[in-house]
Amino acid sequence: MGKAKKPYVIGLDLGGTNSVFGIVDEKGNIVDSTAIKTREQGDIQTYVENCCAALQPLIEKAGGIDNIQAMGIGAPNGNFYTGTIEFAPNLPWGGQIPLAKMFKDKLGIPVVLTNDANAAAIGEMTYGVAKGMKNFIMITLGTGVGSGIVINGQLVYGSDGFAGELGHVIMVKDAKGRECGCGRKGCLETYCSATGVARTAKEVITSSDVPTSLRNIPTENITSRDVAIAAEGGDKVAQGIFEFTGRMLGEACANFAAFSSPEAFIFFGGLTKAGDLLMTPIRKAYDENVLCIYKGKAKMLVSQLDDAKAAVLGASALGWEIE
Amino acid sequence: MGKAKKPYVIGLDLGGTNSVFGIVDEKGNIVDSTAIKTREQGDIQTYVENCCAALQPLIEKAGGIDNIQAMGIGAPNGNFYTGTIEFAPNLPWGGQIPLAKMFKDKLGIPVVLTNDANAAAIGEMTYGVAKGMKNFIMITLGTGVGSGIVINGQLVYGSDGFAGELGHVIMVKDAKGRECGCGRKGCLETYCSATGVARTAKEVITSSDVPTSLRNIPTENITSRDVAIAAEGGDKVAQGIFEFTGRMLGEACANFAAFSSPEAFIFFGGLTKAGDLLMTPIRKAYDENVLCIYKGKAKMLVSQLDDAKAAVLGASALGWEIE
Repeated sequence: MGKAKKPYVIGLDLGGTNSVFGIVDEKGNIVDSTAIKTREQGDIQTYVENCCAALQPLIEKAGGIDNIQAMGIGAPNGNFYTGTIEFAPNLPWGGQIPLAKMFKDKLGIPVVLTNDANAAAIGEMTYGVAKGMKNFIMITLGTGVGSGIVINGQLVYGSDGFAGELGHVIMVKDAKGRECGCGRKGCLETYCSATGVARTAKEVITSSDVPTSLRNIPTENITSRDVAIAAEGGDKVAQGIFEFTGRMLGEACANFAAFSSPEAFIFFGGLTKAGDLLMTPIRKAYDENVLCIYKGKAKMLVSQLDDAKAAVLGASALGWEIE
Repeated sequence: MGKAKKPYVIGLDLGGTNSVFGIVDEKGNIVDSTAIKTREQGDIQTYVENCCAALQPLIEKAGGIDNIQAMGIGAPNGNFYTGTIEFAPNLPWGGQIPLAKMFKDKLGIPVVLTNDANAAAIGEMTYGVAKGMKNFIMITLGTGVGSGIVINGQLVYGSDGFAGELGHVIMVKDAKGRECGCGRKGCLETYCSATGVARTAKEVITSSDVPTSLRNIPTENITSRDVAIAAEGGDKVAQGIFEFTGRMLGEACANFAAFSSPEAFIFFGGLTKAGDLLMTPIRKAYDENVLCIYKGKAKMLVSQLDDAKAAVLGASALGWEIE
């Protein structure tokens, strides 16, 4: 009864600014792609219609919809179980959006949806450094800190579809931590995201008069990229900021190991461009803090997927998972 | 080709003091049981022989070995993947002990082994309050703090068989925490185990002169049971100790939720006898600290299995899992 797999899947990386589509083959080649602005399409019904209109020429070039196995969507606050986007603060539509069903009805192929970090983990498992791994934790270091956890070869969705929010593990307790967008204090992402690195820089600069090239930039404008450039240029303060960030990530990962004892932690996103500036303190703090039975076991890897393509690849990889 | 299930499994709860055996039916009734002293059997070969000799009359009463589906063993540092006990500090045999294979060779039935907290989780899923649940976290509060994590209906063993050591998540960072038997500092179990409660009591008594009935007991002899009795009798200091313990557990569980978003946390072991003294602060701190998307979702349950029987039941339940 088994049907032969079709040659392509569609991936949609739904971001607050752009909605990027790719037609992807089984080896992870994006054979065709297009994009529309997420915010300029009006209501959700019109958004889906405009997406499908933009996709139509790509589908035809791929030999028609019969050549497409399925569509995968990576979206903020995407719920795998329900196929809905739920109250995503960075998207123009409020409430619960049954996006998977809307695309399915329109395109006539299976559609599955999950959040962006989970999509990244599946992408890594399908096309990236996690190929062949059954147990790993993906940590995305962007504006926030996201995570996708794979155990026994399956993505962990939990009882409600929202498992894997490791960016919101509280690292600094007793309300002594930084304020987080989630309304609480001390979350990992307030320290270890790109935004967190910039906050650390601002704190260091305003709370001391230590000399640093970062003072040449108006404090409010400092980005994690500026800190990385300064650190690479030998600025000790900037290097210390990456040391602090990496240490906290390493400590957090040591705690995560006690949960699922993964084969690898895989880091992805803008901050990883800092390379060893970030990875060396992560590895050091991990080794110093992890329980002895786990010591020396988990690899600390950086995703090798092209940043610009990884989100679409991750979303598309979901399409191969549908049974 | 499917064979009918046989009526019984054998459970072995291998503890540092006693090795307790039960013949268990599918409903979780322990139809027969026996025990030998773990330490008085000499080398591991003799231990296994003596175990089997003690089991023989029970097996015969059950209608012979053909009526036994399998044997499950719960043991400290038990590794499910390899069937070995690895460097268990509280057992008389060092190194790696291939215990599952030894029993299998001797009895001629499938034998599977895991650590005690994992066995407790499987027991709870097979016979207890987790029946029907696919995602839950079992926390055992005994001499230490153990855990068994179930995701998608499967126990989480991780890449090496040692996943689920939540008692060793670091709750007090930067080497400011209590010394743990694992060689590190600040682990959850140094605060929230029975031993941890006794440590808290000693700290409070020696670091202040606040009046408490606990001063009637020689400080070195105070146990968590003494603290519970004092708290139930209205002693404010003792009540504060449970408040402190429960709060830390609730904060820890709030972080665990960000990992697997479980349907329930299930607490088991001596400390849970304190009832609401412990559970009320757990629930309160959990609600105060958990990310909003998880709020009000996870149940906080206490195991209803008989303490004396639960370990054997848990081990036996492993036997039904073998395919």
